[in-house]
Amino acid sequence: MTDHDVSFLRDLDVECSFTESRREQYARDASPHHPSTPDAVVWPERTEEVSDVLSAAYERGVPVTPWSGGSGLEGNAIPVEGGIVLSTKEMTWVEADPDTLTARVGPGVVYDDLNEALAGDGLRFPPGISSGDVATIGGMIATNASGFNAVRYGETRDHVRRIEAVLPDGEVVEAGRNVVKTSSGYSITDLLVGSEGTLGVVTDATIELAGIPAEKRAALVAFESARDACRAVSDVIGAGVKPGAIEFMDAHSIELLNENRDDLTLPERATLLLELHGNTSGIDEDYAFVEGLCRDHNVVEWTEPGGAMADVWEARREALPAARAYDPDLDVAVIGDVVVPITNYPDIVERAHELADEYDLLVPLVGHAGDGNLHYTPLVDREDEDHVIRAMAYNNEVVQAAIEMDGTATGEHGVGIGKRGFMSDEHANTVDVMRAVKDAIDPKGLLNPGKVIPEE
Amino acid sequence: MTDHDVSFLRDLDVECSFTESRREQYARDASPHHPSTPDAVVWPERTEEVSDVLSAAYERGVPVTPWSGGSGLEGNAIPVEGGIVLSTKEMTWVEADPDTLTARVGPGVVYDDLNEALAGDGLRFPPGISSGDVATIGGMIATNASGFNAVRYGETRDHVRRIEAVLPDGEVVEAGRNVVKTSSGYSITDLLVGSEGTLGVVTDATIELAGIPAEKRAALVAFESARDACRAVSDVIGAGVKPGAIEFMDAHSIELLNENRDDLTLPERATLLLELHGNTSGIDEDYAFVEGLCRDHNVVEWTEPGGAMADVWEARREALPAARAYDPDLDVAVIGDVVVPITNYPDIVERAHELADEYDLLVPLVGHAGDGNLHYTPLVDREDEDHVIRAMAYNNEVVQAAIEMDGTATGEHGVGIGKRGFMSDEHANTVDVMRAVKDAIDPKGLLNPGKVIPEE
Repeated sequence: MTDHDVSFLRDLDVECSFTESRREQYARDASPHHPSTPDAVVWPERTEEVSDVLSAAYERGVPVTPWSGGSGLEGNAIPVEGGIVLSTKEMTWVEADPDTLTARVGPGVVYDDLNEALAGDGLRFPPGISSGDVATIGGMIATNASGFNAVRYGETRDHVRRIEAVLPDGEVVEAGRNVVKTSSGYSITDLLVGSEGTLGVVTDATIELAGIPAEKRAALVAFESARDACRAVSDVIGAGVKPGAIEFMDAHSIELLNENRDDLTLPERATLLLELHGNTSGIDEDYAFVEGLCRDHNVVEWTEPGGAMADVWEARREALPAARAYDPDLDVAVIGDVVVPITNYPDIVERAHELADEYDLLVPLVGHAGDGNLHYTPLVDREDEDHVIRAMAYNNEVVQAAIEMDGTATGEHGVGIGKRGFMSDEHANTVDVMRAVKDAIDPKGLLNPGKVIPEE
Repeated sequence: MTDHDVSFLRDLDVECSFTESRREQYARDASPHHPSTPDAVVWPERTEEVSDVLSAAYERGVPVTPWSGGSGLEGNAIPVEGGIVLSTKEMTWVEADPDTLTARVGPGVVYDDLNEALAGDGLRFPPGISSGDVATIGGMIATNASGFNAVRYGETRDHVRRIEAVLPDGEVVEAGRNVVKTSSGYSITDLLVGSEGTLGVVTDATIELAGIPAEKRAALVAFESARDACRAVSDVIGAGVKPGAIEFMDAHSIELLNENRDDLTLPERATLLLELHGNTSGIDEDYAFVEGLCRDHNVVEWTEPGGAMADVWEARREALPAARAYDPDLDVAVIGDVVVPITNYPDIVERAHELADEYDLLVPLVGHAGDGNLHYTPLVDREDEDHVIRAMAYNNEVVQAAIEMDGTATGEHGVGIGKRGFMSDEHANTVDVMRAVKDAIDPKGLLNPGKVIPEE
């Protein structure tokens, strides 16, 4: 990595900083990936300012890495080649349009803030991410993020109608329209979603919203074994039910959650956290139906937490901090994120457990099970090189297993740095198509370099 | 257009024809666009055969136009530069996987045949197109087709998990995985959907299915005026209800339907055809709620056709033939297809009526109203040049009006030849991004030339 001359930023009408302390804040995201310090940070407030920065940087061959909430888990926004970090955090407008069930939003709006702003209209942006207090809409679009509620409401992609973006050379483009459907040419909108700022910087978007469900019913279900819990999930989804959320936590995870919170004493068993959403009385029929499907698989305890559900959710959201807090000598080596076809969910969970034994690792498992999505966080002593190497080998084997089960290497965290090495395994020669697209849109390779597309 | 030497096809192991009578069958689709006869037609049965044809044609600079059901309404598959038409009609496999609610399908499977094959498992591919007896899955993917049921179930795009495609040079690629969500790099799947065979030939796909709804309730609702009907639609959708279908037909269309079928005597007024789908008792609540919303807008007659609904649907599916049959001296000049934000639906319908008066044209209107989708079919005497010119001017003005209302020039029929001229109006400089992608993937411009992307 070389230092870039970024003094030209002083001549632009955009807030920027060259101080080491500010730059250091943008050297790492929420992942364990190696930090890399940018040469400057800019905080544009409007699309024109983003365009000015990009065109000036493009002319001079200076890399620009867009930065959203900084909550990325795969090093997605780490400026590995230095240059400029472009933070969108000042671009925070929200214009809801309840009549079309959409909102126009700036990329810097934090997920929870957006939903707070929408709540008055009975609406929400529904993918349901764990890091909603930090992650922004721009980042969610960049990684096609999703979470707890994707099983019913879909990924970020499913909600993006229109994107305004600035291309690497500073040109401003608008992709998509505020319509529910279109067959008007290539979907540049869908190309930008999930491209992690390697093709353009998202400066504005029109997103579809969902109504806040009028009714919810939740259950916490402890099973005899992880396999039982996962089979129940597979049955529920296979039956065509779309719960609002269906989370899997293995016994290790529950143990960590209990240790992390004084108010929690969940049975330390493989558990499903179920939530049904509905607007009509049909929710009770669904509930009974789902309960029946689950009880075919050795349910040990079925509880309906009612008002206490908020605490359970808060605990679940803290699964990663809980893993980090479990033992002061142990840290999370990698945050795993794979998805498999729902019928293979019991197998990937079993394989993840087997491999934890093989590599002698403590690996709590949680997952947005209804999506076939599994997260795992091997805990290691970072001072112990062998321990870290085993965790990396573990991650490698779980991802390969997921790919072999017709799954994907990354369900919602994006590719960033961490999953680049798996792209060819998953996509084979389709990576060349991605590379051709990248080269066509960013021929100088200046936008978020070193991410998504692997080296040739 | 020049003749291409396609004799090399004789050396390939693929069924082909050079006879004029066969070639003529692939000169026109279901649209009024000018025909153009290919130099040869091939009917590959397997991906390898598609690859062989494409690589041989690519080497020799011969254009190839993929052909699906031939039901395109914008000249999407007309081989405007001659060369080879590649029909996928022999590629008709269907492998349903009820446990993952998906099916692996060949591009040549006809929509209705697919749903017949899936019905035994209680499943269907739900976009609900009018030309389901002819259109194939490959064509639906090509144009991102949708229809009656998109309002609840989404477009074709929303259902495509994985595509195998052959690139212009014959390389076989696989995009996407059989998972409900992924953030693993650029979505080449979404790039291929809606690209109308200009980037690759779809040879296999994994599509998501929906359950056949356990319960349906339908209503035919005649309103005082078109504006009343459209406001009712806007209110229903704005309230967050997702009907299985909500079709608009203006008084002209109803008149045509009545004339076309002896068994039909619908009130000749602006009408909504409503269908609610559900799996639980909640459907009755939804029905009452929707009825209440509609009755705020001058309902003249509310009927629940019950078993007779099948006839109504059949009639609605015949709207285009009915328009064509209305008067032997009049033909459909153009099949309009625009989408606007739902709140603008009353305005686009009103504008379409006003313009029909201005241009002195008979223009029946129908539309998948819940999507904000409007179809219009000006009827003209093809011998009368001025009549045809007026219809073209009419189409131009309606499309421009839709674009000005933040809508799209084509909702479900694709761009083909007919909407190419509107691409810059709708997408401005984003057309350059589309062109860059096309050039990157098809540098020789041989795959379905003359479509989607306008000339520079």
